[in-house]
Amino acid sequence: MKKTLLSLAILTSFAAQAEEGMWMPQQLPQVAKQLKAAGLKLDPATLTKLTEFPMGAVVSLGGCSASFVSPQGLVITNHHCVYNSVAVNSTPQNDLLTNGFLAKTMADELPAAPGSRVFVTEEVSNVSNRVISPDVAKLTGKARVDAMEKNQKALVAECEKDAGYRCTVASFYGGLEFYRIKQLEIRDVRLVHAPPSGVGKFGGDTDNWMWPRHTGDYGFYRAYVSRDGKAADYAKDNVPYKPKHVLKVAREGVKEGDFIMALGYPGRTNRHRLPSEVAFTFDWNYPAFVKASGETLAVIERETKNDPAARLKYAGQVAGVNNYYKNRKGMIASYEGSDILAHKTAEHNALKAWVDGNAARKAEFGADIDTVEKLIAQRDAATKREFFLGYSTPRFLNSARTLYRLSNERTKADAERKSGYQERDLPRLTSVISGQDRTYDEKVDKALVLNFLKQYSAQPAAEHNAAFDNALGIRAGMGEAELKAALDKLYAGSQLQNKDFRSAWMNKSPADFKASNDSFIKAAVALYDADRKDEADEEELGGNIQKAYASYMKAKIAYMNSKGQAVYPDANSTLRVTFGNIKGRDYGADGTGSWTAFTTVKGVVAKHTGEGEFNAPEKQLAAIRNKDFGRFADPKLKTVPVDYLATLDITGGNSGSAALNARGELIGLAFDGTLDSIISDWDFNKAATRDIQVDIRYILWNMEKVDHADNLLKEMNAM
Amino acid sequence: MKKTLLSLAILTSFAAQAEEGMWMPQQLPQVAKQLKAAGLKLDPATLTKLTEFPMGAVVSLGGCSASFVSPQGLVITNHHCVYNSVAVNSTPQNDLLTNGFLAKTMADELPAAPGSRVFVTEEVSNVSNRVISPDVAKLTGKARVDAMEKNQKALVAECEKDAGYRCTVASFYGGLEFYRIKQLEIRDVRLVHAPPSGVGKFGGDTDNWMWPRHTGDYGFYRAYVSRDGKAADYAKDNVPYKPKHVLKVAREGVKEGDFIMALGYPGRTNRHRLPSEVAFTFDWNYPAFVKASGETLAVIERETKNDPAARLKYAGQVAGVNNYYKNRKGMIASYEGSDILAHKTAEHNALKAWVDGNAARKAEFGADIDTVEKLIAQRDAATKREFFLGYSTPRFLNSARTLYRLSNERTKADAERKSGYQERDLPRLTSVISGQDRTYDEKVDKALVLNFLKQYSAQPAAEHNAAFDNALGIRAGMGEAELKAALDKLYAGSQLQNKDFRSAWMNKSPADFKASNDSFIKAAVALYDADRKDEADEEELGGNIQKAYASYMKAKIAYMNSKGQAVYPDANSTLRVTFGNIKGRDYGADGTGSWTAFTTVKGVVAKHTGEGEFNAPEKQLAAIRNKDFGRFADPKLKTVPVDYLATLDITGGNSGSAALNARGELIGLAFDGTLDSIISDWDFNKAATRDIQVDIRYILWNMEKVDHADNLLKEMNAM
Repeated sequence: MKKTLLSLAILTSFAAQAEEGMWMPQQLPQVAKQLKAAGLKLDPATLTKLTEFPMGAVVSLGGCSASFVSPQGLVITNHHCVYNSVAVNSTPQNDLLTNGFLAKTMADELPAAPGSRVFVTEEVSNVSNRVISPDVAKLTGKARVDAMEKNQKALVAECEKDAGYRCTVASFYGGLEFYRIKQLEIRDVRLVHAPPSGVGKFGGDTDNWMWPRHTGDYGFYRAYVSRDGKAADYAKDNVPYKPKHVLKVAREGVKEGDFIMALGYPGRTNRHRLPSEVAFTFDWNYPAFVKASGETLAVIERETKNDPAARLKYAGQVAGVNNYYKNRKGMIASYEGSDILAHKTAEHNALKAWVDGNAARKAEFGADIDTVEKLIAQRDAATKREFFLGYSTPRFLNSARTLYRLSNERTKADAERKSGYQERDLPRLTSVISGQDRTYDEKVDKALVLNFLKQYSAQPAAEHNAAFDNALGIRAGMGEAELKAALDKLYAGSQLQNKDFRSAWMNKSPADFKASNDSFIKAAVALYDADRKDEADEEELGGNIQKAYASYMKAKIAYMNSKGQAVYPDANSTLRVTFGNIKGRDYGADGTGSWTAFTTVKGVVAKHTGEGEFNAPEKQLAAIRNKDFGRFADPKLKTVPVDYLATLDITGGNSGSAALNARGELIGLAFDGTLDSIISDWDFNKAATRDIQVDIRYILWNMEKVDHADNLLKEMNAM
Repeated sequence: MKKTLLSLAILTSFAAQAEEGMWMPQQLPQVAKQLKAAGLKLDPATLTKLTEFPMGAVVSLGGCSASFVSPQGLVITNHHCVYNSVAVNSTPQNDLLTNGFLAKTMADELPAAPGSRVFVTEEVSNVSNRVISPDVAKLTGKARVDAMEKNQKALVAECEKDAGYRCTVASFYGGLEFYRIKQLEIRDVRLVHAPPSGVGKFGGDTDNWMWPRHTGDYGFYRAYVSRDGKAADYAKDNVPYKPKHVLKVAREGVKEGDFIMALGYPGRTNRHRLPSEVAFTFDWNYPAFVKASGETLAVIERETKNDPAARLKYAGQVAGVNNYYKNRKGMIASYEGSDILAHKTAEHNALKAWVDGNAARKAEFGADIDTVEKLIAQRDAATKREFFLGYSTPRFLNSARTLYRLSNERTKADAERKSGYQERDLPRLTSVISGQDRTYDEKVDKALVLNFLKQYSAQPAAEHNAAFDNALGIRAGMGEAELKAALDKLYAGSQLQNKDFRSAWMNKSPADFKASNDSFIKAAVALYDADRKDEADEEELGGNIQKAYASYMKAKIAYMNSKGQAVYPDANSTLRVTFGNIKGRDYGADGTGSWTAFTTVKGVVAKHTGEGEFNAPEKQLAAIRNKDFGRFADPKLKTVPVDYLATLDITGGNSGSAALNARGELIGLAFDGTLDSIISDWDFNKAATRDIQVDIRYILWNMEKVDHADNLLKEMNAM
């Protein structure tokens, strides 16, 4: 499971077992009994306090979760969460991905990938009545979206008066509740340590989402701030951030049955979607995505086969696409063998019957429940129509559109600008725009675009986007040679691959853009009005969906409450707690009868082939051969454990989450689920769902016996 | 498990359970009770007749096993047994390895790799008294080896008067018994069908020796003979060979618990080696082999990375080396976790006590048992000394030595020539020599030799082979640059990479060789006398070992018989029967609790990544998605089974063995064992040992629903 970028998640879910549930910290007293029963030794009330131990040590990397493990701002997370930072610092001559990286002193630390952040949550407040204010409640369509956005921007601006903080307003329970989250946004993030990919990515994409697993998925960042303790851009004389709380490494190893909880930022779940949304996703959207991803991987493989530099540039994208590719295929396979749609439909019909069975309820919710289905069908049709368009857009045409949009937004007062283009967004935008060439190769980008443009072009003219066609000089039915000629001309006519040239457009006026001869900039200018029209149409639909959907969800929650069932919100990239037990499974993958809870270094040796994805470093193999296990051997397993299964409820975004024992001590990092667990994002399956942690003993053993990261062990007080 | 080339196997083993035992067909009545108990419905006596059904359908490919499945000479075996034939017919433009191959008519069939053979066993006779004739029994050392060889050659010559037959004299029970085996040697072998590597080699080297397994390891040859039914070289108007018996495909699928037997040619087991042989193998020989294999794979990978043509040429060698690399590593791992040496030592001490406890036995065996240990220590020292020498020899220097040896042997009468250089050996030699460039690339060969020559060169001068050093112009302690210069000169000075040039030397006189300026030929001539001296030394030692070892084994058999234990001979590439049941295992690989007996196509989908070793063809995935399973779905599994585990006792050479049900019908092909089973070659472990079959239903399903090989299904009467 790798990092996921998210739009707002707006749904909710319901707790049936201890294992199911991504609890907001403030909800934990509601499940205090279950927490105690599972084995928690801490007072559940301590977990509700975001700035106390242990919650105060937990941070977001924006897509991954992480934790402070030293008073000097040392952050532990997954290898795959620091992967891009290792990749951008790698060259064919000094391949840190392959060799691993260890800064022996702070001076040796390397800047993380552009845009890397550490977010420290300091405050969460309910702002529901300030987002859906009485005047907003009356609106529909785009007017509703605009008004909500205005309220949200004001809430954010008010909060961000505190320099160095980033504030967001997140939607919970289908837009019924909104919370404002205030986070210190640490911008100077440095790579401290990553094991070789032969440990950190052992098993590669073959083992991703698989059990038995032998991946040492850990890595370390350090958060830096200015000398006066403020968030700041990278500067040589910045100093390590001093977190208020840090996690302590558990002295005692874990075993099957032990209590476990994970604290992190799960991205998105969809456990209570409408039946029609489920059907569209699994019958059309995911299959189309899987096909496109397979093509993307094949094109990148073909184009970079004999070009190691380009291969490195695309390593991050390949890892990301592969991850979702496998994820979606796994979901489709699980879905096909399930009765999910049937029971979602039955649940939905029961809800409708409950609404229709009472005049007041019918009056309040009836129309919205009908309406929401129709609106969603419209959205699905647009998604289908625009599917190939996204894949067919050159990377730097998108950059040009972003830059021109920024230029136009900047003609307005900051508060009036579209979200994403305000002053607060500029540092992130700047670093994204300036860093793009690090992950770009023209021949690869062009080959990817051509691959999909052929499919876009083959669509009937009525499904084409006329503005796009005009801007790129193409038309429906063009053959490969003509499309290639059009692309060759476009790419040849732009200098946006030049970093300085590209960055300079961050500060230009709309008139400058209109006067430009750069082909991508010209295309962006030509597309602008049509893009705004498309956006307005989307917002009109979006506002109406939001209104009806919130009403539908309100009905659903009332219905569940009427049956005595409590509700926790679906994941939405905000801080959550999941708890359960370390536990194997009584059945396994095809051809295996069951899964034990732990794997060990024996399995590393068994899987090691000496090449490709199963290539453990020789120094690690030697330590295993010599049984140099020290205090890290498990008393029962008689060797070093590697990964273990638990019944936690996690999803993408939880990657890097601290796994804690009953006393709140660090016992590992959550990093994955098994392939047949991921359907739980849509429908929680208690029997199948297991998540995977890397055991802290494996991390420490590698650091002490293999990589000799004594400096870090000492800093973590783990020698 | 892949094909293995063998020297004589000379040991024996003892049957304790139904599952342990590679039975000579004539021994089966001795285990009739166990066969019936396991479930056999046929009369065990029918299995003893080599020219009746079903034994008459079973053939050897020389390293692999196979079976006739149609009256038109159609042969079924493993994909990895036809792999080289697919590779030599592949080009970067027409990559049959990737795409698979199906001859829709006989005219479309392709010649198999040079040297490919189908051996049909027609007669086996006990010739013990003619090999160790009374005059031989008195001899020692080289004289004994020479006399035994003379007797064996005479036995072979007598048998091979029948044109087109190949006869061998195989040693059983440590040289106490010898059997002459008469086989029709079919030389016109053609490739009929191989699935894409995405099926036939699905999982690649990662999954080799692993469970759960999803490999469709099957392929088809056809045997051709001249119009008058005789074995003949490839000719367009040859006709399919008409076997006397063919295997019938089972109409009913198998399930856990079912009887199963496999008929094939297991290569070599070492179940009753001396403790000192066990220690040398696991403490020195296998580890050295593993290290050298890892280096070989790394060099080939490096040198062929950007050269797809060279990559294809070495695909066969890479597969072979990888296979043994993993095999030996697995054996070492199993050995390290075992008490094998301790209990071998205890058994050996018990034998010695039994011999010493009786004056007559002590007089007959005592001295030989002491002697054999000393002789073996001498042999081990030589093995160590010569280890790098073999790896340091250029491919075409070896060819030159073979050619010059042949030229010298041909000056003698045929009966006087060394085995391997008689007229009977010429067709095989010719095809090996002429085909060598298909698997040769100079830069790869040179890089491999340089890699090992550096290590050879680093050995003390006293451990160097002076003749070899002189012939190659090197000396102990030379650095890489000097060695490389010597190699560059050698390779540049030879034309043996030219096929016509090389083949011409098959027919030249020793004088021609002596007059040649070709660098490898000159080196071969220079090495000749020293090579003969080394050979004579080896034979002197070998003759003495054979005499003492046979005596030691005779004592051991007498001892086991005295305890009431029956004996079956260790594997020696002769036809054997193993039987048992289809059965999972109550524990699995690291991280799994148990193994179920069957895998299914569900696992293919789960493992599929779309690239590398896990890249199932789209048409197969579509058939799985569409549940186009036809009559091949298992009634309990509800889908198509892929591979299954059984308790059979197999080893390298068994690859491709027909797996038959209780009625003698074809239910699959044995193709592998699991990594922790292979230590059974040295010490049979009943709890751990499972072999792996590809289910005939998976083969037929692929042929019918995916590859549309209707012509073959019809021919096999399996529509």
